[in-house]
Amino acid sequence: MDYRAAGVDISAADAAKARIKGLAKSTFNASVLTEIGSFGGMFRPDLSRYREPVLVASTDGVGTKIKVAILAGIHDTVGYDLVAHCVNDILVQGAAPLFFLDYVALGKMDPAKVEQIVSGFSRACSEFGCPLIGGETAEMPGTYAEDDYDLAGFIVGVVEKDRALPRGVREGDVLLGLPSAGLHTNGYSLGRKVLLEALGHRVDTHLPELGTTVGRALLAPHRSYLAALEPLLERDKVRALAHITGGGFPGNIPRVLPEGLGARLRRGSWEVPPLFRLIQKGGGVSDEEMERTFNMGIGMIVAVSPSDLHEVEHSLERRGETSFVIGSVVAGSGVSWE
Amino acid sequence: MDYRAAGVDISAADAAKARIKGLAKSTFNASVLTEIGSFGGMFRPDLSRYREPVLVASTDGVGTKIKVAILAGIHDTVGYDLVAHCVNDILVQGAAPLFFLDYVALGKMDPAKVEQIVSGFSRACSEFGCPLIGGETAEMPGTYAEDDYDLAGFIVGVVEKDRALPRGVREGDVLLGLPSAGLHTNGYSLGRKVLLEALGHRVDTHLPELGTTVGRALLAPHRSYLAALEPLLERDKVRALAHITGGGFPGNIPRVLPEGLGARLRRGSWEVPPLFRLIQKGGGVSDEEMERTFNMGIGMIVAVSPSDLHEVEHSLERRGETSFVIGSVVAGSGVSWE
Repeated sequence: MDYRAAGVDISAADAAKARIKGLAKSTFNASVLTEIGSFGGMFRPDLSRYREPVLVASTDGVGTKIKVAILAGIHDTVGYDLVAHCVNDILVQGAAPLFFLDYVALGKMDPAKVEQIVSGFSRACSEFGCPLIGGETAEMPGTYAEDDYDLAGFIVGVVEKDRALPRGVREGDVLLGLPSAGLHTNGYSLGRKVLLEALGHRVDTHLPELGTTVGRALLAPHRSYLAALEPLLERDKVRALAHITGGGFPGNIPRVLPEGLGARLRRGSWEVPPLFRLIQKGGGVSDEEMERTFNMGIGMIVAVSPSDLHEVEHSLERRGETSFVIGSVVAGSGVSWE
Repeated sequence: MDYRAAGVDISAADAAKARIKGLAKSTFNASVLTEIGSFGGMFRPDLSRYREPVLVASTDGVGTKIKVAILAGIHDTVGYDLVAHCVNDILVQGAAPLFFLDYVALGKMDPAKVEQIVSGFSRACSEFGCPLIGGETAEMPGTYAEDDYDLAGFIVGVVEKDRALPRGVREGDVLLGLPSAGLHTNGYSLGRKVLLEALGHRVDTHLPELGTTVGRALLAPHRSYLAALEPLLERDKVRALAHITGGGFPGNIPRVLPEGLGARLRRGSWEVPPLFRLIQKGGGVSDEEMERTFNMGIGMIVAVSPSDLHEVEHSLERRGETSFVIGSVVAGSGVSWE
């Protein structure tokens, strides 16, 4: 008996590693000291501009968005999603990304599929200036079905200690919403159940109200707000950021508000995109359940001082970023609606 | 319809988070600035003793050792395995751990099971001085069977740039082997196939030659060599380390040897533990296949100058660590046997 008979193909793993190597290298910058293949990725951060650097680290997955990718046979977008998600998570603390690592586990090692997955990571890592310095690709027959896989991503960034967010949020601060590109990486179990089961659509069903197929709409890549927000962070124009991920508005906004303050949002202050309306109607989902499951078209919320509002709006506009005034910080707690 | 009907229980997730919180906090040290629940974990490293600090990062899983844990209903050891594995991976580069993050994905959110899993992470994180500053716990019905789960771990450490390993390996250097505690985290697909299928054992089968049950023997925790090796790294007595993980000796030793050098090992220079002999005999596995799949009882290999050998052996002995001279560095490449 050998390892291959037990379902683990080391030759396929080596072939996959060879394909990953070039993709990862294409993301490297001058801080990366490592060759792919070492036990740990080595990164020499340039901390010269920081008085008191603080590392900010986060990990996440893409949830069952992966199931849509598998159904649609499109494997080069979920890696991008994951990097964008992680970049946004540390951005909430004011941090700029340093580097990224990926974990890919598959039911069956398929070098071509692994290459597609990692091409999504590397595209995003290059875009966000966040080299892919390490990873693990594991073949786990028995845990994953043959065509199945899962991903986890890990990011490390850096922020000046006394500039970390949230910082100085006050009653009366304006809450700006920045548009999401779709479900991003949350709510896919419910979204799939409604669209692919209750409504009986397939990933290749073209729906006029979406302007594309169900699969393409569900796989729309998670947006990163790094480029839009970085200039504002550098000029201290942001008091808090909330990345609208699992838990929606009520699960994420309160995480960045100080004790004694809550968020008051206005329904109708932005247009909820068709994909969310389709899920809500098709599944008979309540407003409340929608809002604690999905981002409802708002991927990031920015708390700014009312006196900075116009400057912030113009800066975002110059970067090509739309924004909506969707509410304000009020005395109280949690999220309420007017 | 709601998120729960789609298989995702946010209340169970909140209950799991509450249990994780205390476990993670118990691992914190003075460098941790974060509260659990922020988007990213914040860590202010004390870099004052480093002239040119280099961050070393690694990620891994525990492979299908997880299936043994699930079969045996023992969930508090695989987290320990993963931290120990990651600590060893960056130790190979000479790095001391700074912090750790975990990714846990389950078919069904079970707060008690999550607590057991995370207790393994926190025990190891405390032991190795490596706070657990963040993580993700994802319920993914459809990707994982109801009782199934997977883990990924992510570690960041630091090393002085000019002291990073490998460094100065030469022909004639002695290779010392440090004992593993069992399979560690590699070869479980083959090990399970032989023991639980071909030989028909169950996880609770007690085998006299193992002195315990098959399940307990397979779940023996991955050893970390940090405590044993740290004093030697500080005194510059180590030229290279190879963590014997997936790929065994031929897959791991060449990764840390310079071009033009290989390893010559002596069979019989250490005793291969009964668990490996049982798998080899039970599955009719060739020596070569065993050695590229399993650690064969050697979890870490240390390359030292012959002139430092006695000092190194005594230092290890004082730390309670056994070591075997298992071979040497020779001209050539790869791993050969005498």
